[in-house]
Amino acid sequence: MVTVAVAGATGYAGGEALRLLLAHPEVTVGAVTAGASAGDRLGEHQPHLTPLADRVIEPTTADALSGHDAVFLALPHGASAALAAELPSDVRILDCGADFRLADAAAWQEFYGSEHAGTWAYGLPELRLAGGGVQRDELTGQTRVAVPGCYPTACSLALAPAAQAGLIGLDDIVIVAASGTSGAGKAMKPHLLGSEVMGSMSPYGVGGVHRHTPEIEQNLARAAGAPATVSFTPTLAPMPRGILATCTAPAAPGLSAASLRESYEKAYGAEAFVQLLPEGQWPATASVLGSNNVQLQVSLDERVGRVIVVAAIDNLTKGTAGGAVQCLNLLLGLDETAGLPTVGVSP
Amino acid sequence: MVTVAVAGATGYAGGEALRLLLAHPEVTVGAVTAGASAGDRLGEHQPHLTPLADRVIEPTTADALSGHDAVFLALPHGASAALAAELPSDVRILDCGADFRLADAAAWQEFYGSEHAGTWAYGLPELRLAGGGVQRDELTGQTRVAVPGCYPTACSLALAPAAQAGLIGLDDIVIVAASGTSGAGKAMKPHLLGSEVMGSMSPYGVGGVHRHTPEIEQNLARAAGAPATVSFTPTLAPMPRGILATCTAPAAPGLSAASLRESYEKAYGAEAFVQLLPEGQWPATASVLGSNNVQLQVSLDERVGRVIVVAAIDNLTKGTAGGAVQCLNLLLGLDETAGLPTVGVSP
Amino acid sequence: MVTVAVAGATGYAGGEALRLLLAHPEVTVGAVTAGASAGDRLGEHQPHLTPLADRVIEPTTADALSGHDAVFLALPHGASAALAAELPSDVRILDCGADFRLADAAAWQEFYGSEHAGTWAYGLPELRLAGGGVQRDELTGQTRVAVPGCYPTACSLALAPAAQAGLIGLDDIVIVAASGTSGAGKAMKPHLLGSEVMGSMSPYGVGGVHRHTPEIEQNLARAAGAPATVSFTPTLAPMPRGILATCTAPAAPGLSAASLRESYEKAYGAEAFVQLLPEGQWPATASVLGSNNVQLQVSLDERVGRVIVVAAIDNLTKGTAGGAVQCLNLLLGLDETAGLPTVGVSP
Amino acid sequence: MVTVAVAGATGYAGGEALRLLLAHPEVTVGAVTAGASAGDRLGEHQPHLTPLADRVIEPTTADALSGHDAVFLALPHGASAALAAELPSDVRILDCGADFRLADAAAWQEFYGSEHAGTWAYGLPELRLAGGGVQRDELTGQTRVAVPGCYPTACSLALAPAAQAGLIGLDDIVIVAASGTSGAGKAMKPHLLGSEVMGSMSPYGVGGVHRHTPEIEQNLARAAGAPATVSFTPTLAPMPRGILATCTAPAAPGLSAASLRESYEKAYGAEAFVQLLPEGQWPATASVLGSNNVQLQVSLDERVGRVIVVAAIDNLTKGTAGGAVQCLNLLLGLDETAGLPTVGVSP
Repeated sequence: MVTVAVAGATGYAGGEALRLLLAHPEVTVGAVTAGASAGDRLGEHQPHLTPLADRVIEPTTADALSGHDAVFLALPHGASAALAAELPSDVRILDCGADFRLADAAAWQEFYGSEHAGTWAYGLPELRLAGGGVQRDELTGQTRVAVPGCYPTACSLALAPAAQAGLIGLDDIVIVAASGTSGAGKAMKPHLLGSEVMGSMSPYGVGGVHRHTPEIEQNLARAAGAPATVSFTPTLAPMPRGILATCTAPAAPGLSAASLRESYEKAYGAEAFVQLLPEGQWPATASVLGSNNVQLQVSLDERVGRVIVVAAIDNLTKGTAGGAVQCLNLLLGLDETAGLPTVGVSP
Repeated sequence: MVTVAVAGATGYAGGEALRLLLAHPEVTVGAVTAGASAGDRLGEHQPHLTPLADRVIEPTTADALSGHDAVFLALPHGASAALAAELPSDVRILDCGADFRLADAAAWQEFYGSEHAGTWAYGLPELRLAGGGVQRDELTGQTRVAVPGCYPTACSLALAPAAQAGLIGLDDIVIVAASGTSGAGKAMKPHLLGSEVMGSMSPYGVGGVHRHTPEIEQNLARAAGAPATVSFTPTLAPMPRGILATCTAPAAPGLSAASLRESYEKAYGAEAFVQLLPEGQWPATASVLGSNNVQLQVSLDERVGRVIVVAAIDNLTKGTAGGAVQCLNLLLGLDETAGLPTVGVSP
Repeated sequence: MVTVAVAGATGYAGGEALRLLLAHPEVTVGAVTAGASAGDRLGEHQPHLTPLADRVIEPTTADALSGHDAVFLALPHGASAALAAELPSDVRILDCGADFRLADAAAWQEFYGSEHAGTWAYGLPELRLAGGGVQRDELTGQTRVAVPGCYPTACSLALAPAAQAGLIGLDDIVIVAASGTSGAGKAMKPHLLGSEVMGSMSPYGVGGVHRHTPEIEQNLARAAGAPATVSFTPTLAPMPRGILATCTAPAAPGLSAASLRESYEKAYGAEAFVQLLPEGQWPATASVLGSNNVQLQVSLDERVGRVIVVAAIDNLTKGTAGGAVQCLNLLLGLDETAGLPTVGVSP
Repeated sequence: MVTVAVAGATGYAGGEALRLLLAHPEVTVGAVTAGASAGDRLGEHQPHLTPLADRVIEPTTADALSGHDAVFLALPHGASAALAAELPSDVRILDCGADFRLADAAAWQEFYGSEHAGTWAYGLPELRLAGGGVQRDELTGQTRVAVPGCYPTACSLALAPAAQAGLIGLDDIVIVAASGTSGAGKAMKPHLLGSEVMGSMSPYGVGGVHRHTPEIEQNLARAAGAPATVSFTPTLAPMPRGILATCTAPAAPGLSAASLRESYEKAYGAEAFVQLLPEGQWPATASVLGSNNVQLQVSLDERVGRVIVVAAIDNLTKGTAGGAVQCLNLLLGLDETAGLPTVGVSP
C-alpha cells in the first residue's frame, strides 16, 4: 500500500481525487489539506466522501504533506512550485494545476502573465507522439508529473492520431468545447450560481485567450512533429460535469473516411480508457460520468474538406483526478488502470 | 384585428406561436389544429396556454384553416406544400417548416432526399445582402413566407455583416452550435428522455449532414455575393430552449478588431431585435429566453487569423415562432415589433 | 401613465419587477436603484432587460426614489421600514420584503429575531377570508402593501378555500414545498453554485423554523376564522424558478371529493390567475413559468383522511413581482390583470 | 466467483445492476437479456457500460437465465412470477419488481389490480423490526428476495427507528418525496421528455394511490408492531437520479429532540450504508449519487408536534440495484458491502 496526501481537498479536483483514491486497491489516503477550511471536518465540505467525513482538514503545508509516498496538488495556479520545492525529491507529486505543463516559457508568459515555473513530465499517457512513440513511455521513472488540463485532455486525444498520421492540416484547427460547471471550480462567482447556469449556454475566454490553448497546441505539435495552430472556444454548459469537445481540422488531400477511422483504431485499439465508438454512435458526456473513459467518434466532411472528431470525457475524472491517478499508477509501476472506473454512472 | 390560425398547435413550435399570438395586440387566435390530437382540449397538450385551455383542437385540413387572414404552419417537413396549395392565394402563410427555404433544388435534393417543393420569400428580415440591401425589403407584399430554421437564424445573423463587408473568407467557415432539446420537437425518441438529456452534451448530424447546413450557406452567400462553405456541427444541450452558435471564419488580411466591430454596429445598430453586446460581455441563452432577441458578440483572434462571432437566441422564439410573427407583422404592414418581447425571462 | 421606481434592481425580484413593468401598458419605469452596484450599467447585472441595458443604476436612497407614483422595494429584510418612512405617504409602496407582512409582533420576533416594524395591507388579492370576504377588498385605497412571500402565496391559495369552507382540520396541516434556486436570491453561497444545485434536491429550514411558516398560518387562520398550525418543510430543487407546494390537511368528517372540488370551483371560478385544473391533470412549475398563474389540483385520500392540494407558481412572478404588480393595479384602480401574463413560457 | 445474469439489461435498473456487478470483486457477469432489444449489442442501449459494449443481448427466457448462481430480474411488474417458476430453486433470484413485496394479498389487489403472486423475503437489510430484530436476519439462507421499491427504501429507513422505539404516532404519517426521472424508467411517455422535465416539478400518483404506499405502511407496521397509515405524495424532479423523502409523523407526547436523535444513532450507528448526518447538515441527493448510501437527518418541530426525518438516496443504487447487490451478498455469505460504493459521485 502506498500513502497519498491530497492538497486542496475541499475543491472539486481534490474531492474527485479522494473519491478515486478511496476506491484504489493499493492506496491509503493520508493527509487531506486545505487553506481557509483547515480545521473543519472534511464532511462539511465534501458530504459525498462518507468514509472521510470525520477527517480533520490540515493546513496545506510541506509539513503536513511530508511522509507520504505521493502527493496530489489540487491548488490554484501558482501555488505548486513553492510547495513542491519543499518536498523530498523522491515523493511523487502529481500537480493538477497548470504550473509545469508548458515547455515554452514564452507561451506561458503570454497566456498566464507570470514567470514560468518550469516543465514537468506531461501526464497524458495515451498521447501519440511524432515518430511513433507514446507519452506513456516518458512517464516511467518520473517523480514529478504535470497533470494535463481538462480541455487539453479531450482535445489532444481527439486529434493526436490524425495529427501523428499526417491526415490533417495543422495550421487551421478549430475547436469548440462545452464544459460542465465544475470546471470553473468552487469559486463564488455570480455567473456560476445555479440560477444563472441552469438553462443557459454561454461562451467564455473567446478569441484565443483561454489558457488551455497553448497546451493543446503543444500536444498536437508533439503528435505531428510540426507546429500546430488552434482556434479554441470554450463554452459553459448547464451540467455539473463533462466536456464535449468538437474538434475540426483541414483534411489532408485525398483522405478517405476509412483511412481516418483506421488511424484511430490503430492508435487506441489497445487503450483501456479510450473508446472509438462504432460508426453511427456519438459520444455523450453522460455516458462517461464518473469514469476515466474518453469516448471518441470521427467523421470526414468531404464536401468542405474537414475532419471532425468529437470527444467526451468527465472533466473531473479523466480530465483531472482520474488522469492523475493513472499517472500515479505508472509512476509506481502498478497496473495503469488500477482503481480507475471504466464504467460511467448513467443515466 | 387579424385572425390567425395555427396548424400543428400541439407541438413546441405551434405552442410558441400561440403564446406570442395571444399577446399580440392586433391578432385574434383562430383555429388551432393538429393531427392525431384533434378533438382533444388544447389544455391537455399545452397546459401553459391558459386562455386557450378549453379550445377543442380541430383536424389539420384546408377547411379548418380557411377563413383566416393568416395561417401558421408548424408541421413536419413535407406537409406544407399540399396544404398551402389548397388555401386562397391572399391568405398569408408562414411556414415554420423547411419545404420552401432553399432556392437550390439540388441542395434540397441532397440534404432532404425528396423533390423540391419550391421557394418562398425567406423570412429573415435582418439578413444583410450583398450590395447593401436587407432581406426585410423582399418581404413586403408577400403572402407566402418560408420561416428560417433555428440554427440558420442564429448562424446567419452572426456572420452576415462580416460576410457582406468582405471581412471574412467564405471557404472555410466553421460553426459549432448547441441547442436546447425543444429543437428536436416532441417526438418520442429515447435519447430525448429527460433521464438521458439532463447532465449530458452530445453531438448529432456530424460531418456536414445536418439539413440546416445549405440554408446557412445560402444566407451567407447572399450576404457576400459569393459562394460560402460551412462546416456545421450541432450539439444537444441539457436545457429546454436556446441556441448558442459559435461561428468562426478566416479573417480577411489586415482586419482589425475595431473595424470588425464597426461593421456589426453599422449593420445592426437600428435593429430592434439584434443586440451587439458591449465589449467584454458575452451572449447567454438564458438572457434571451422567451424573447425575440439575438445577442451577439464578436472577436478577432489575431494569432490564428479567425473571426469568432457568438450568437444566442431562443430557438422557439426568434428561431421559429417569433421570427414568424415578425414576418407576419411585415406582411400586414404592422410595426415589425408588434407583440414580440424584447425582454427575456431570467433567471 | 404612472411612473414606478424599483429599489434593488440588480436582484432577482427587482429584475422580475422590471421585466413585468416594461410590458405594462400603463407604466413608465423610473429610477432603478441598488446598493453596491450603483453607477453600473443595468445591462451588466440584468442582461435580459434589453430596453434598460444602458440605464445607470442609482444608489438606493429616498431621494432617488422620490417623485414616482409608486415604488417597488426588492430589498433585504429590514431595509424597507427606514426607506418607507422617508417617502411621502401618497406614494404607493409595494414591499417585496417581509418587514410588514405579519400582524403578530410576537410571531415576528420569534421567527425573525428582530423588532416588529409594523403591519401593512397584505397583498394577496385572491385570499379567501372567513365570513365570505376576499383580501382584494382590503387593498382598495391603500398606499402601503406588504407583498406576500413566495411560499405563502402558493400554500395559502392552495388551502384557503378548504379552510374557509370548514372542509379541513387546522391543527395538523403538513406542507412540503420545492422551490427553484432563484428563491434564495443572488447571494454568493456555496450551496447555490450551479455545480452543487444541478442534479440535487435538498431540504432547508427544517423543523418549523422557516420564516414563511407564521405567514402561512396567519393566512389560513384568516381564511378559517380560527388558528391554524402548519408543519412546513421547504426544499431546494434543481431549477431556476418555480414552486411546487404539496399541501395536506386532515379532511373534515364526511367530506366528499365532489364537495371539496366544488369549494375550489366556487372560490376561484372567477379568478383570472388561479386555475383549478381539470380532474386528472396536475400542476407543473414549467407550465406557469414567467406567468402570474397559480395552477391547482385537489385530491381527497379517503383511506387516510387527508386532503391534498398541490399548487404550482412561478416564485418570481406570482410569488413576488407579479403579485406586486397585481397589487399596484388594484391601488391605482387599473384592471387587476394589466401587464400580467397568463400564459407561461413552455417548454 | 459467482456468475450473475441480468434480465431487463437495457432498462435503467438493469443497467445499474450491471454497473455494480462489473465492479463486484466476487462476481462474473453472465447473460444479459431483454425483450425487444434481444440481438442488439448492449453498447447501443447502455453506452456507459464499456466493458460489456460488445455483448449481444439474449432474449429473456428461463433458458438464457439458467446456469447462473444468481439472477437479477429488472422487469415490468407481473413478469417475474412465471420466469421464477421456471428457474431451479437453488438459483438466487433478486426481483427488482414489485410482484413479491407485499404480504397482504388484499393490499396487493387494491393497489396493483391483479392477483397476488406471493411473498418473498423482503430485501431491506437495515429495516428495524418490532421486538428488536432487524430484517437482515430474515434474509440469511434465502434464495428468493423481493428487492424493495425505491421510495419504500428511503421512507422506511427514515421512519423505522422512531416507529420501533415508539417515538411517533402511526396513524397520521405524511410523506412527500421527490424522485429523479430515472424512477419512471425508459418508457416513452411525453411528460418524461427532457423538454418537459427540465425546469419543472410536478406531482403524480396523488391522493394515496401510488403503489409504494402499502409497501411503506407494511414496513413501518413491522417496525412498530402495529398498523401504520401513510399519506404519500410523490413528485417528479428535474434530475436523472435521486430521491429526497421528507417524512413527518406525529411526535409521541414528551418526546425530546435528544432522545429522537439517540434512537437513530442507536439504530444505524453500525450500519455501513446509513449515515445520520451531524446536526445542522442536511441530506442532498447529489451527495449520494451512484452510491449505496442513505443520508438521514432528523428534526423535532415542538411547536406543531411533528417529527420530520429527511432521507436522500440514489433511487437506482440503494433504491434498486444496489439494494439488490447488498441482498445478494447476504445470500451468498459475502461481506454485505462487497462491491458497493459508499462514496458518491459529486458534484
